[in-house]
Order: sequence, then C-alpha cells, then structure tokens
Amino acid sequence: MPITTPLTTQLGIDHPILLAPMDIVAGSRLVTAVSRAGGFGVLGGGYGERLWLEQETAKLKDLRAPFGIGFITWSLARCPELLDIALAAKPAAIMLSFGDPAPFAPKIKSAGARLICQVQDEAMARQALDAGADILIAQGTEAGGHGASRTTVDLVPGIVDLAAGRVPVVAAGGIADGRGLAAMMMLGASGVLLGTRFYASQEADGADEAKRRICDATSGSTVRGIIFDLSRNNVWPAPFTGRCLINDHARRWMGREVELMQNVAKVAADYAAAKASGNFDVTAVIAGEAVGLIHDIPPAAEIIERIATEAEQLLARRRNSIASAA
Amino acid sequence: MPITTPLTTQLGIDHPILLAPMDIVAGSRLVTAVSRAGGFGVLGGGYGERLWLEQETAKLKDLRAPFGIGFITWSLARCPELLDIALAAKPAAIMLSFGDPAPFAPKIKSAGARLICQVQDEAMARQALDAGADILIAQGTEAGGHGASRTTVDLVPGIVDLAAGRVPVVAAGGIADGRGLAAMMMLGASGVLLGTRFYASQEADGADEAKRRICDATSGSTVRGIIFDLSRNNVWPAPFTGRCLINDHARRWMGREVELMQNVAKVAADYAAAKASGNFDVTAVIAGEAVGLIHDIPPAAEIIERIATEAEQLLARRRNSIASAA
Repeated sequence: MPITTPLTTQLGIDHPILLAPMDIVAGSRLVTAVSRAGGFGVLGGGYGERLWLEQETAKLKDLRAPFGIGFITWSLARCPELLDIALAAKPAAIMLSFGDPAPFAPKIKSAGARLICQVQDEAMARQALDAGADILIAQGTEAGGHGASRTTVDLVPGIVDLAAGRVPVVAAGGIADGRGLAAMMMLGASGVLLGTRFYASQEADGADEAKRRICDATSGSTVRGIIFDLSRNNVWPAPFTGRCLINDHARRWMGREVELMQNVAKVAADYAAAKASGNFDVTAVIAGEAVGLIHDIPPAAEIIERIATEAEQLLARRRNSIASAA
Repeated sequence: MPITTPLTTQLGIDHPILLAPMDIVAGSRLVTAVSRAGGFGVLGGGYGERLWLEQETAKLKDLRAPFGIGFITWSLARCPELLDIALAAKPAAIMLSFGDPAPFAPKIKSAGARLICQVQDEAMARQALDAGADILIAQGTEAGGHGASRTTVDLVPGIVDLAAGRVPVVAAGGIADGRGLAAMMMLGASGVLLGTRFYASQEADGADEAKRRICDATSGSTVRGIIFDLSRNNVWPAPFTGRCLINDHARRWMGREVELMQNVAKVAADYAAAKASGNFDVTAVIAGEAVGLIHDIPPAAEIIERIATEAEQLLARRRNSIASAA
C-alpha cells in the first residue's frame, strides 16, 4: 500500500521522499539511485560549477526516472547561464533555495520543468508562490547545511496553512525515518526531503570518513552557526547559517565568533589545509539534527524502502487500532 | 473513537492531552477545566509559593477527575516541604521539570502518585528513568517558558527510543492543534503537553492583555534567551533559557545581553515597574512557537474537544485513504 500524495502524483514518483540537493554530496550517482528506487533525486548544483554540472547532468541522460536539479538561488544569480545547462538535461523539476526565485521562474516553466522552492518562513513562501512555485519545501532549522531558525514542527503547519492546498508542501529538517515521514504527513505535508540520511548512503559522493562520523554521531551533536562559513571565507546572506557536526574546530570557536573574525586569515588558511588533508576534526561535516537516528551506510534504495515501509506500517497500525477501538 | 494510548490508560484520562504546569497561569480553575474535559490538568506549582499552593490545592479538593501538580525541580529543592502540601491534595501525579528528580521520587511514589519528569535531552531522560519516572515529557525548544535547545521533532524520537516502551513519552513544544497531536503519535509519543494553547483559554489565570497578544502573534514571533530572566533578576541554571513573545523590551536587548547585564539594576527596576503596571511592551508574555496556530480564547474544554477530534479525523482519514488504495 504505497503512500500516494499530491507530491507523488505531481512528480510521478512511487514514494514521497526527495533527496536534498546537497552540494557535492548529491551527485549523479546518488540521484540515480534515489530516483530508480522510486524517490526523487535532486542533483546538488550548489554554488554552481559549470564543469561539474556538465559532467553530472551528462551522466543522468539515460536515467529513465524523474529527477530534479537544485541550485543555491543567490549563487545562481551570479552565473544564470548554469540554468540553461541544467534545463538541457530535461529534469522534471528545478529546485531553488535561499533567494528570490522570480528571475528564474519563467525560463524553468517554459522549459516544462516544475519549480520547487525551499523556504524557511512564511514571507519566503509567499514570494515563492508569487513566482509560481509548483512545490514548496518547508525547511526547519534541524536541517543540515544552510537554513534558518524556525523549527520543522513549527514551520510545516504554517506553510501548509499558507499554501492552502494550492501546491504540495514537503517537510525538511530532522527527518530520517518512517516515523518522521508519517508525522510530517499528519502535519499536512505531502512528503519529506532528506539530506543527512542520504549522505550516509553508499552512493553519496562524500568522504567515507564524513559518512562514518554521521553514523557515529549521537543526538544533539550538531550546531547551527557561522563558524564554518567564516572559516572557509564563504559568508552567506542573512538569515542563513549552516548546521554541521560539532567537531574540534566548532568546539574551539563556538561563542567566540568575533575573535574568529579578527583572526580570519590565519583560521581560513589552517582550515583550507585541514580540508585538503581530509582532517574532519577541523573540516565541517555538514549534517542535520537527525544524525542520532542514523547508524549505517546502506544503499539509497534500502533507505527509501525502509522509510516507506515504516511509514506505511505506522499509518496502518493507527488504522487497526482505531478499527479495533470502534 | 477516542485515542487510547499507554498514557491515557496509566492516568485514567479520556484524551492524551496534558496541561503544562505554567507558573501562575495554570491555576486550579484551568486545571479543573482541563481535567473535567477529559484531559489531564497539571497545577503550576512553579517556583513554589506556599500560600498560593495551599489555596489552589484546596480548590481542587472536590475535583472528581485525575490531575497533577508541577514544580520547578531546582526551586522545589529550596523548600522541599511544599511537596507535602502538594501530595496532601491527592494528585494522580507530580510533575518535575528542570533538575534532578531523584531526591523527591521516593516520597512521591510512596504517596501513591505517579512521577512525571520533563526532560530536554537523553541524559536527563536517563536520570529521570533511574529515579523511577512513570512518564517522560520530551520538551522541545519550541516550548514557551523555560526549556533548552533541542527541537521537538529531533528530541521526541530520541526519547521514545531511549524509553523503549518502558514508560509513555509525551511530546511538548510547538503543538497547539490536532495535527500536532497526530504527528507526535507517529513519532512514537503517547500524547502531548500544551502550554501556550491553554494560556489562551478562558480559565487561564493570565492577564487578558497577555492572552490577546498570544492570539495576535504570528508564527516566528517568539524568542528563546535570557533577556527576560536577566531583567527580572531570575537567572536559571544552564542549559535552561526562556521563550517569550518578542516585544519592545526583547527587540531592545536581543544581541546586547552583555550590555544588559552591565546595566541590570536600572533595567530590572524599569522592568519591575512595567510589570506592576501591566505594560506588556516590556513585561514578558511567556509563549511558545505555536503562537501562530492560536487565534482565539475559548474555554479549555473546547480546546481539548477540537484537538482530540482533529487528531482522530486525521488518523481516520489516513485509514480511509490507505483502505481505498489497498
């Protein structure tokens, strides 16, 4: 009894599970695995590297399942021609996060792709709907990587009420199992978008050491802030900050961001060296609050199967207990 | 088809909805209304004022429905004799939050009351279980008033996994409607504990102006921090901070806490004067992230009826759609 929602219908997918377009990590291999398993893979176009995008979209040419391509909106605005490369790959959808989607919406729509907009509050959701978004992702602060401050359980019903059934709303942030999918459906979401859970998959293009750290991390061991963005000279526009695993570097600088800024040249040089040598005591492992629910590195298809099955069983169990109570 | 869970069975209540023991706001009138409507009222014993406690427990004498009494654990430790006054009122449960419950557990248990412990992370949950907690409240950062940093959607499954079926887990923080109750049940909770939603009820002992501000507040208009605790000379032990509506006082001092501390005598005097005059541009309205879902001030019984009915319908709708998809 697969879960059918307005999201699965609109995207033509079997399970209401989307891959977050994690920069570098969500390459063509992971997108292919997710989409072939009945989810919706979204390529991590990220900041936009032309060569990478050309190579990865080329590998998606023979994928006979719907997929999407995601961009950081404010970064895409600096090289808008990357959107043409993306659309040439015939994605079912373009996903835009962190910035005004309006300048890109007409081209996306006229290419026949859906426009998925990730939002962090109601004002952004209104902007996205005005731009013609076909799907909204409501991203809570629990999410790994960049995001804002509102929590998933607070934001999702708010965005669902605002969308008022016009477009499907997908929940993101803090979700890594079937319980989370079932819970978000109760809040009115039509599906979930998962990052960290898919980072710890066999097909993710992340370092093995990073994946292992995600598996080993316990609940409450991530932090949202600007330490890592400062350290890599990549400061984002407000209100966006980044969530990563707490490692030695984070412990060293948490609460001392002003001092970090005063010494940023030295810190950034050390950080770059650590990144080059794969030292994850310093380099960020971008991960969300759901790390406590993640304990293995299976194939992406197995992740989707598990989550879908668990959610279906939870919903069916409610059916049975209500039926027996009737 | 009322929702039956291990929580409703253990407490002998009709609906898995608990009243948060809001200091001052959750008086005998609100407790009576919630418990008579089939929820579980918990008196806001708060910091522990003997006279107030004696008066309010006296008014609960003829309440022929189960109820509880809540305390701030670290504050109760300063006047432990208040527990005797509470137990003399024959509550079905004592709820302890913010501190080690172990010193109080034997007396509570030998009086035949259940021990409900509110926790904000797994370490506190372990401590509570070791002390013999009968019920755990997993309180996410969305909650109004004092709490910590972990979010509801992150914390609840973590505490459910840790409890492993030994005791019911109740979700708190960011919940104000039936969607929230149904969602938390999918995460494995046996019920919910609501503060802000019941603050905006007719029977709550809060100022009408405070209730009105809760109704008018939109999503995202609360903040967690130490500004209000600093301003009223009531600093809590780490990791606990307070969440309140963002008002002029909060806007003035957010991000300037150090400066506030340097001027605390003056700020505290002004704050006390504002409180005495009922000026809520300065005085805190303690409220959680669910304010965006709250738009009216109905009787508590109506709140319970609405939430229970909405949750039942959501769960039944899933049953129907799964049944039709089968």
